[in-house]
Amino acid sequence: MIGKEIGEMLLENKEHFLIPADRVAHVQLNNRLNHALLVLTKIGYSVIPVLDYDYKIRGLISMPLIIEAITGLEDIDFDKLGDILVSDVMTTDFAVINDPYDLEEVLHLLVNNAFICVASEDGSFTGIITRSEILKGTNRIAHEFENKYDVTRKTERLH
Amino acid sequence: MIGKEIGEMLLENKEHFLIPADRVAHVQLNNRLNHALLVLTKIGYSVIPVLDYDYKIRGLISMPLIIEAITGLEDIDFDKLGDILVSDVMTTDFAVINDPYDLEEVLHLLVNNAFICVASEDGSFTGIITRSEILKGTNRIAHEFENKYDVTRKTERLH
Repeated sequence: MIGKEIGEMLLENKEHFLIPADRVAHVQLNNRLNHALLVLTKIGYSVIPVLDYDYKIRGLISMPLIIEAITGLEDIDFDKLGDILVSDVMTTDFAVINDPYDLEEVLHLLVNNAFICVASEDGSFTGIITRSEILKGTNRIAHEFENKYDVTRKTERLH
Repeated sequence: MIGKEIGEMLLENKEHFLIPADRVAHVQLNNRLNHALLVLTKIGYSVIPVLDYDYKIRGLISMPLIIEAITGLEDIDFDKLGDILVSDVMTTDFAVINDPYDLEEVLHLLVNNAFICVASEDGSFTGIITRSEILKGTNRIAHEFENKYDVTRKTERLH
């Protein structure tokens, strides 16, 4: 369980944690890799969500996955970019949680995931939570917690 | 300034913060983009350091930077990959700090940088610090701090 006061300070900025879906670039299942590569290049990110026709989150596609898919033993065959579907290459092994989300789960998942996808109960894409906002909370706690609270080691009281 | 007890708990795992240079893939200034793209694909990362002949850190090269460099108004011209040098495309605007490093600076820089390069005084590449290790510290503080410490709001004591 997360400590009450620490948890509150981490969550002070909670309304900024979620980047809403309409501000997150995405591609669709049946897009080709050349389209996905152009979208990724345009926005300057290396990974984005893949949605289906119902706006449900189905996977993630990244530049490394795209280039790997067209790479042979020695060479990269760029002609294949127009042939392969995003759905054939995307990873379906990614972090997704339901909204309303639990801070404990978010903190845990962000250790090994650069961002977490948030979806409603029916799987509709709600947005993403990134490490950056949680790190702002870590900075706040590191700088402010002991200004606001007196802190006494519990075992010390036993003596 | 960072609170004493919070800072100590964040740093409990400090020996793991730095991923040493010999475990971080890199490319060199005069490599061509096709080589850099193959290295990035092989390791599955989207950005790596660029070093010079003296093992000094000079920039970062990423998949988005590489693809952007060969993208025209409508199309991506992959034939250019063998012509362009990494040094022409890399970004020199990146976070680098000296070893021994200061936790306060690390926390601050990681809000806007996925990782920080660490260099010795003469610029030699020492390694990187990633968000993941700091987030492990955040988890530790969130879960353990209030088990180990009694926490009292300072203003409450005034009443």
